[in-house]
Amino acid sequence: MRDDDDWEATLAVVEEDPPEVVSFTFGCPDAAVVRRLRDRGSAVWVTVNHPDEAALAEEAGVDAVVAQGVEAGGHRGGWDPVGERDRLGLLPLVRACIARVAVPVVAAGGIADGPGLAAVLAAGARAGQLGTAFMLTHEAGTDPAVRAAFAEGRPTVVTRCFTGRPARGLLNDFIERNDGAAPVGYPWIHHATTPLRAAARAAGDPEGMSLWAGQAYRQARPVGAAELVEQISLQARVALGEGWPVGPRP
Amino acid sequence: MRDDDDWEATLAVVEEDPPEVVSFTFGCPDAAVVRRLRDRGSAVWVTVNHPDEAALAEEAGVDAVVAQGVEAGGHRGGWDPVGERDRLGLLPLVRACIARVAVPVVAAGGIADGPGLAAVLAAGARAGQLGTAFMLTHEAGTDPAVRAAFAEGRPTVVTRCFTGRPARGLLNDFIERNDGAAPVGYPWIHHATTPLRAAARAAGDPEGMSLWAGQAYRQARPVGAAELVEQISLQARVALGEGWPVGPRP
Repeated sequence: MRDDDDWEATLAVVEEDPPEVVSFTFGCPDAAVVRRLRDRGSAVWVTVNHPDEAALAEEAGVDAVVAQGVEAGGHRGGWDPVGERDRLGLLPLVRACIARVAVPVVAAGGIADGPGLAAVLAAGARAGQLGTAFMLTHEAGTDPAVRAAFAEGRPTVVTRCFTGRPARGLLNDFIERNDGAAPVGYPWIHHATTPLRAAARAAGDPEGMSLWAGQAYRQARPVGAAELVEQISLQARVALGEGWPVGPRP
Repeated sequence: MRDDDDWEATLAVVEEDPPEVVSFTFGCPDAAVVRRLRDRGSAVWVTVNHPDEAALAEEAGVDAVVAQGVEAGGHRGGWDPVGERDRLGLLPLVRACIARVAVPVVAAGGIADGPGLAAVLAAGARAGQLGTAFMLTHEAGTDPAVRAAFAEGRPTVVTRCFTGRPARGLLNDFIERNDGAAPVGYPWIHHATTPLRAAARAAGDPEGMSLWAGQAYRQARPVGAAELVEQISLQARVALGEGWPVGPRP
């Protein structure tokens, strides 16, 4: 993932002031690292895109796996840098992970409203993780060009052309031109395209930027973040029937 | 879809002895056809892969749309013969269809057990449609080579190489060899590959057959079909909380 010095420096930061959760993407830490973090009181979560990854994460001693479906915006968080041929949708991924591991499964990807959250809880996930849903909130630092692009109904696609790793965003000219030739090469492609994307952003040109978004972006709403969390919780309660507790299942 | 004579002959069959539901794939019938079928007492359902298709189906007067997610086995049932670039996962598809149309949404693709069914009901679907879940049941005519392939944990992929339309099945040598060059050409490619596939089946060779399966195939169980329906219903009730009615929502 990183070279050893960077890695030790990063671990030192989280060990000095242990957060409640340390959540990994792009791979699973060694069992020794998981133990170090847990010994300091942090729970360790690892993002997976496949039940085989969930099983390996459980072997490493993690507290939970974040099952990220094909619907998710931004990078595929599992440890395949190429982009696997069969990208599992969230529902079968959650069910397959629950069948394979005993640790709690957190569902991510394609959830952007209360009924979507209710769905993954009903499927047996212990929690849902939402990203794109917050991109239009007042507090989000979402670029105005990206906010405008959200309203256009574009398709989203998974591409390596911005960073060298597969990631999902709204389709634009940059992807049309470069997706077919995109190499496997994170983070070098990320560094190579950064000035291009910065220039496009400065020019307000959505065709040259990475417009990260998940497939549920059409459900994103321009409200306050706290209001959104309240709405989603309430809608999830309603969808699961009056009085059903949202959150960890009994 | 078909030439006019075939089409009239098909309509005559369902008009003579009207079934409760006439469900379409690969396109939406004209409003006049929908009216004819409804006048004879049949409900008309149409399979869609995108909320735009759901909106067009509603305009044609259908009684329900079947929202089929990317997870589904066999053919993509919407009306794009090429295979659209952005294939929506079931959860965001269901939520987007519900936001676009007032008719009931039936969820299909990636549901193979009770919690999966509970999930789509919680997301607001009025019913779930299951296919792959039944492929290992005692009553299913599933080829022994396909049953064996289900146990191997292969990935599934969407390919046009068997029929000329995009369809999902377990990865095998036939797909590895032919997917890259597969033309858009249903049903001609179907007819062209039929003898090849028949020969592979006769030889018990899974590498030359179409091994249709959805992403939730790992949840399929070798039980009786009636027992499976009972299990799934019971599990869905439990997942949605004691006493919650399975089926159409209030």
